Parts: sequence; C-alpha cells; structure tokens
Amino acid sequence: MQMPQPDAGILGRREAIVARLAAALPADGLVSDPRELLAYDCDALTVYSCPPLAVTLPRSTEEVSAILRICHAEGVPVIPRGSGTGLAGGALPTADAVVLGVARLNAVLETNYADRYVRVQSGRTNLSVTGAVEPDGFFYAPDPSSQLACAIAGNIAMNSGGAHCLKYGVTTNNLLGVTMVMADGEVVEIGGPAMDAAGYDLLGVICGSEGQLGVVTEATLRILPKPEGARPILVAYDSAVTAGACVSDIIRAGVLPVAIEFMDKPIIHLTEAFVGAGYPMDAEALLIIEVEGSPAEIEEQLEKIKAIAETHHPTTLRESASEAQSKAIWAGRKAAFGATGQVADYLCMDGTIPTSALPETLGRMTQLAADYGLRVANVFHAGDGNLHPLIMFDANNPEELRKAEALGADILRLCVEQGGCLTGEHGVGVEKRDLMVHQYDPVDLEAQMGVKDVFDPKWILNPAKVFPLAASQGRGA
Amino acid sequence: MQMPQPDAGILGRREAIVARLAAALPADGLVSDPRELLAYDCDALTVYSCPPLAVTLPRSTEEVSAILRICHAEGVPVIPRGSGTGLAGGALPTADAVVLGVARLNAVLETNYADRYVRVQSGRTNLSVTGAVEPDGFFYAPDPSSQLACAIAGNIAMNSGGAHCLKYGVTTNNLLGVTMVMADGEVVEIGGPAMDAAGYDLLGVICGSEGQLGVVTEATLRILPKPEGARPILVAYDSAVTAGACVSDIIRAGVLPVAIEFMDKPIIHLTEAFVGAGYPMDAEALLIIEVEGSPAEIEEQLEKIKAIAETHHPTTLRESASEAQSKAIWAGRKAAFGATGQVADYLCMDGTIPTSALPETLGRMTQLAADYGLRVANVFHAGDGNLHPLIMFDANNPEELRKAEALGADILRLCVEQGGCLTGEHGVGVEKRDLMVHQYDPVDLEAQMGVKDVFDPKWILNPAKVFPLAASQGRGA
Repeated sequence: MQMPQPDAGILGRREAIVARLAAALPADGLVSDPRELLAYDCDALTVYSCPPLAVTLPRSTEEVSAILRICHAEGVPVIPRGSGTGLAGGALPTADAVVLGVARLNAVLETNYADRYVRVQSGRTNLSVTGAVEPDGFFYAPDPSSQLACAIAGNIAMNSGGAHCLKYGVTTNNLLGVTMVMADGEVVEIGGPAMDAAGYDLLGVICGSEGQLGVVTEATLRILPKPEGARPILVAYDSAVTAGACVSDIIRAGVLPVAIEFMDKPIIHLTEAFVGAGYPMDAEALLIIEVEGSPAEIEEQLEKIKAIAETHHPTTLRESASEAQSKAIWAGRKAAFGATGQVADYLCMDGTIPTSALPETLGRMTQLAADYGLRVANVFHAGDGNLHPLIMFDANNPEELRKAEALGADILRLCVEQGGCLTGEHGVGVEKRDLMVHQYDPVDLEAQMGVKDVFDPKWILNPAKVFPLAASQGRGA
Repeated sequence: MQMPQPDAGILGRREAIVARLAAALPADGLVSDPRELLAYDCDALTVYSCPPLAVTLPRSTEEVSAILRICHAEGVPVIPRGSGTGLAGGALPTADAVVLGVARLNAVLETNYADRYVRVQSGRTNLSVTGAVEPDGFFYAPDPSSQLACAIAGNIAMNSGGAHCLKYGVTTNNLLGVTMVMADGEVVEIGGPAMDAAGYDLLGVICGSEGQLGVVTEATLRILPKPEGARPILVAYDSAVTAGACVSDIIRAGVLPVAIEFMDKPIIHLTEAFVGAGYPMDAEALLIIEVEGSPAEIEEQLEKIKAIAETHHPTTLRESASEAQSKAIWAGRKAAFGATGQVADYLCMDGTIPTSALPETLGRMTQLAADYGLRVANVFHAGDGNLHPLIMFDANNPEELRKAEALGADILRLCVEQGGCLTGEHGVGVEKRDLMVHQYDPVDLEAQMGVKDVFDPKWILNPAKVFPLAASQGRGA
C-alpha cells in the first residue's frame, strides 16, 4: 500500500509549525515528542502505520478553528481522528501531517425529549450518547461493534452502522445537524433539529465524507424511545445458501427485525471454542434474528419469522425464553472478532450486496478463498446485505499479507459485480482507495473530487484517502 | 418578483438553436410554436409566468443527453420540468431558456420484490409507481397531495414528502439510485439497490437540488409491503395550543402514527362548507391521526394515542369503525386546498419547525395575519412540524398580492427563528430564493453554490432559482 512522499518543505519547517500550534493551544493540547507521537501512528487497520508531524488535542470548536487556520496557512495536511477505531485506515497519518484528535470534545450540550434529539460534541463516544439519555428512556440507534470506544465524529466520517441498523438506519438516517470547521477555519452550521434543509442537502454529503470536507465538532442526533423489550431467535441450516434464502424471504415479507446476523461454519466453530455459547456444531450457517417492541409486537413478529424459517427446514430453531438465553444466543456473535483474533491475524472486509444475491455471493467467495489457499470466516449483517468476511492470515509472513489483500480486493470486486458496494460502514480510507475505479468511472470520480475542491480547495483535509492517488494527484496545488 | 433579463444574444440565435434541437429530436419532441409554448409558461405557482424559447419532450436518456449537449454548447439555460405541479416556481421558464419536460419518460424498467425496489423512468407519476407494484402487495411511500399528477423527477428535485412521511420518510429516504444526465450531456449512475455508497454520498445532495445539478432520467425507488390495514381517529380541542401540545406528547412518547394532520378553525369551517365531512364546528383545532399495521398493532397504537389525547381533554374524539367512517374523517382534510380555492386565491406556504414549537408558532402566526389584515387557514403535517399556512387574498388586487407575499415571508422568517426551515417539501424555487439569506450566512451559500459550480460550471441548469439573484450573479460566466 503506497502513501504519498511527505512534503520535504513541510518537514523542513517542522519546528516553526509546531511553535505556531503551541502558541495557539494550551500546553496539553499539543503532542510533538517523537515517542508520544507513536501512539497516533495508526488506527485499527494496524498493518499500516506512520507517526505524524504533530498531534493536536483541542477542547473547543474555537481551538479546532485555530488549528485549521494555521495548517491552512502553512499548507500542512490535517488528519482528523475520532477514537482511532476505524478499520479502513481513514485516520492513518503521513509524516508531514498534523493529526487533529477530537476525543476531548466530549460534552453533552443539550437534550430535548419533546423534539427527540441530543446535541453533543463530536468526540463523545457512541455508547455514552445513549448513556446520557438512557435514564429518561431514550437511546441513540446506530451501534457499531466498537461503540464502547468509537467517537461520534468517526461515526459521521464513515457513516457507521451496526447490528441494529436494519431497522433504525445508519448514521446518516439519525444525524440531524452538525457544527463543522471548514479547511480554512471558518465555522459553519449545517442542518438542525427541524425537518429538511432549504437549498442543497449538504448534511448528506458530509456524513460519510471521511474527514475530507471539514472537521465536525458538534452533532445534533435523533434519539428514540427505548422499546419495551427485545427477543432473539437462533436458526441454523445445513447450507449457507438456504440460510441466505431465508433472509431474502424475511425481507421480502416485509417483517422488520432489528437485526439479522449471519454466521458461517468456520466462525461458528471459532466462537464456540472461544466462548462456548452452545451453538449447534453441525450447522453450515446460523442466523440470529432479533425483534423489538411490546410483548404483543414481539410475539406477532416472531410468529411470522418462525413460519418463514420453518419453510426452509432448519436443523435448529431456538427461541429465547429468558434474559439469560438471549445473552447466550448473542454471546458467540459478539465474541466473533475476538475469537478470530485468538487463532490468526485477520483483515475484516466490508462490502455490501443486494440481499437476494446472498446465496450466490457466499458460494463464489468460498471458491475464491480456496483458490488463494486462505481461510475466510463470515459473520455479517445479513438483513441489509452488509458482509464482513474475515480473511485469516499470518501477519509475520509478507507473502500471506499480500495474498490476503489480493483476496480482499477480489471479494470487494465480487460485491460490486453483484450490484453492491465496496464499503457498507467502514469507509474507503486507504484500504479501498485503489478499488474505487471498480465502482466508479472517471466522470463519477471527477464529480466527487470536484465536491472536495469546493470544501477544501487546497486539499489539506485527509488528502491521500478515498480516491486513488493517481486520480487525485495534482489537486489542491 | 424579479427574474434576470433574458440574454439578447440567445434570443437573437433563437432560430438556429431551435433548428439544432429539431435535428436531434423526432418531430413531436420539440415545441416551438409561440401559442403552444404558453402551455409551459408556469408551474403550479401560477402568479408568475413566462413562455420559454422552446420546449423539448424527450423519450429516452439519449435524447435528454442530446438536448443538454446542444444547450451546453450554445450556453442556453435549461429548465427541467416534471409534471409542472410544483408550488414554488421551480419550473418557471425565462424567455431565453429551453424547457426539458420528462413526462414522456414514464416506463417501469424493473421490479424486484426480493430486494424490494422498482426502477422507473423519472417522468412516471408518483401514484402510478405504486400502481405498478400494488397488485403484488407493495407500495411506494412518499405521497404528495399532487400524487395523481406529479412526476418522480419533480419529487426528487424537491425532495417531496406527503401526509404519510412521518412514518416512511420523504423522497430522500426512499430513493436508492438515479441515472442522471449532467449539464454537458454526460450520463452518470449514482447509488443503486445495494446499501450505502463508497466515497461521497452524492445521491443525498442530488435529491432536493431542484434540477440544478443534472437531469434525472431514471430512478431506483424503495418499495414497501402494503400494511394489512389502517385506521384514523379524529380529535378536536378548544385551543390550537392544546392540539399542538397533544402532537408533541405523541411524538415524545415514541408512538409512530403514519400521519398526524392538523387543521385550524378557519380551514375546518371552509372544508365543512365545501364537503360536509361532519367535522365538529365548535373546535378550534382538529387532529387526524392514522395508524397502520395488523389488527393487533392498530389496536395497541390507538390505545396509546387515545390515552395521550384524553389527558388534554378533547372536545371530540372519534375513532373510525368502518371504511366509510375512515373516508369521512379524511374527506375534509383531502378537500382543504380545493375548499380554500373556492372562496379566495391563496398562497400555500411550506415551512418547518421543531414539533415542540408548534403552539408558540401558531399563536404568533395568527397575530401576524391580523397585523396584515389577511386571513390565514392552517392545514399541515403536524407530526414532523411541516406547516402549510394558506394565505388568502384577491389576486386581482395587486396591493393584496404584495401584502400576501410579505406575510408569507414573515411567516417563513418566523419558522427559521423558531429553529425550523424555509421549506419542508415544496422547494425554494423562485418563491423563497430571496429568503435564503435568513437561513444561511454568506459562507453557507457560497459552499452550496460551489457544489453547483462543480456539477454545472456554466450554470445552465435552472440558473435563476434557489439562490438570491444577487448572490449567484456572475457565476458560470
């Protein structure tokens, strides 16, 4: 994976740049000691790393604005960073860049239950947004697996989803407005608690723009009343294709579970060895389907789902009858990534496909993995066709890393070919930058890069991400 | 209302431009006879009108591309037009412009029930999209009042909603992808049936861009399974403030009716005189609240809603017990615009406010109307705070038109002041162009116009709309 050469001119002016930043920030707002910079040399795509020129840790929108004014004047790249939990390298620094970490912007600014929103600073963690409104019976719906740690800023940058986004939508469906600092330090407000936007809907293009259009410092988020209850069922089949067909039928019938999670045989065995959740070891594929609502609603939805599941002749169908049984059903799914990490290094892919293409895609993916001689475990949000194949390899073997990357690229190309998309919720970052040409032709890429030209004419915000380096070369100069 | 002076150079080249278009289109694809052009001199904001230079009526994406290539080369403004039902003058021509009407692009291209979408050409009417999938038990959710006539192209341009958008969202929440012809004739695909988009979410910025970024020729639309049933209740109060408080409480409780419609005393009396729906004449305000689902779901939701409504001491609470009673409850609401048109000319406003600001906004609006000596009737989608005040006046009295426009502007400024927005679902068009400065500061407007610069560098697509003329002057030159 190639990154652009650092700008020698910027490296030469390092001390002057650090001095300007130091003058604008409190003493603890700037990190420039080379040893401390190592803590910011990568995000959760740890196979790539590079310490930045400096790290800034602002406490207010005004400080963010001051940092961007300086970097804009100096022509220094800025890498916005939430909590660093991103899986696509969206917060990977370059040696000539200043990291702008928003973790200290973590206050709750306003809660409004009558209009059902909460306004928070963008560094607040996802789970603590719910924490702030839970005592009053509300919650914030998007729930990435990293929700204990990940920041709302990163959720907005990547348009993050989660297991429950089948019913409640992803970040863009739950984001009402932002305060954003533009590349030159100007502060703008976009959207807000009331419906719609006059003129163009810029909020939509900002959500998912991977920190390339501005630095979001505050967000107005839709909150929802907590449902009365929830109940999962576990359904296992002797073929992944049958499980895929069951998912298609549920979606087609118009029942709307909050989650339909899919696990294939390799991941069932890995997690069972790790947490002993009591999953059926004879199954080729397993679905966890959860519904929410009042007791009557739960009953009615589960009856419909069980009826559909039965038509496909499951090898196991287990409905939770208690809180403890619900926990057990979820235990393996929640431990899936950890269980995989115990036995191998892995790359977590993130492609989407139309739900109806699930059976064929799974079959072809198995064939691809066999061709490369690599193991792939599948655990994913099946309801909305968001796949997360885990490609296992040995990170100490450079040849295996290369093969794993090549298999990952083949899998994502397969998703695009099936009418899907390179990324569901992790973003493009550096990981899928060069694959964008398989999704978009040059006219499409030009239109997207033109939008960046408007927001960030100098291309200082997270410049070497999202677009193929060859395509973006020379922009912003 | 000021429109830019037509370009004398274009007017001088009229015959040559018409000849080029004639050469590229079948004989019935071009209208240039001055008498026939009068049919296209306005949309549903009929107080402003101007015949265009020519009208083109393409039958394919290729013909749309050919028209745009010619107009782009000639520097001629293009006014995209769906069915001409827009209420904000978004399809108002200028004398030097070519209207591009998509009404003949009306085919259904694909239906896919497993992935729950339908792909149609953009000139297809809203209701006939549902018509195409209804026999199989599906429907397309957004339902503008004009749904019998309005085109999907116009729904996308204005991000249209409807009475049922409280539950199902507006157009942007139901649009999965488009085929769009760029200003220079290039054809691009944006979005599609699978989840999310890699890179920037351009679909969001295109939906609601009022025909300024491209001409949409095909759309992939989310369809939903038809609910088993629906049932409305009618609740009346002796004060509009109390009715507003009831709406707030329902939203806060997290019940999600498909519609909460609000009618004030003037509109109740107007519609009752017109259709005799049996509405309570002593009421100051009336709510129509409809829920959908299985019989058990309907029962459960209505119980919660009735309990909340009762706490506010309604003067009438009437639950429908039959199909005929449901029709009667809706009859007055559906006839509201027609009933108003019987007694006066009217301007239909379209502002939004946070739901909790409903009571105060209604009080201040009544005061504003009294100050101007004009009558205002209120009928609107209360659940999502989308107001449609109808300002009644005599169109033959220029002074009254001026006063009605001034009152309309004051009402929309009031919405912005309350934390709301200039437009919910009708768009900015020419009507609210000059009010955009109350919603956005110059930096915001510059960012929006910069996006148009990218998509349409010459500013030939619907140029004199959305932005104040003074702000957009000189762009695209």
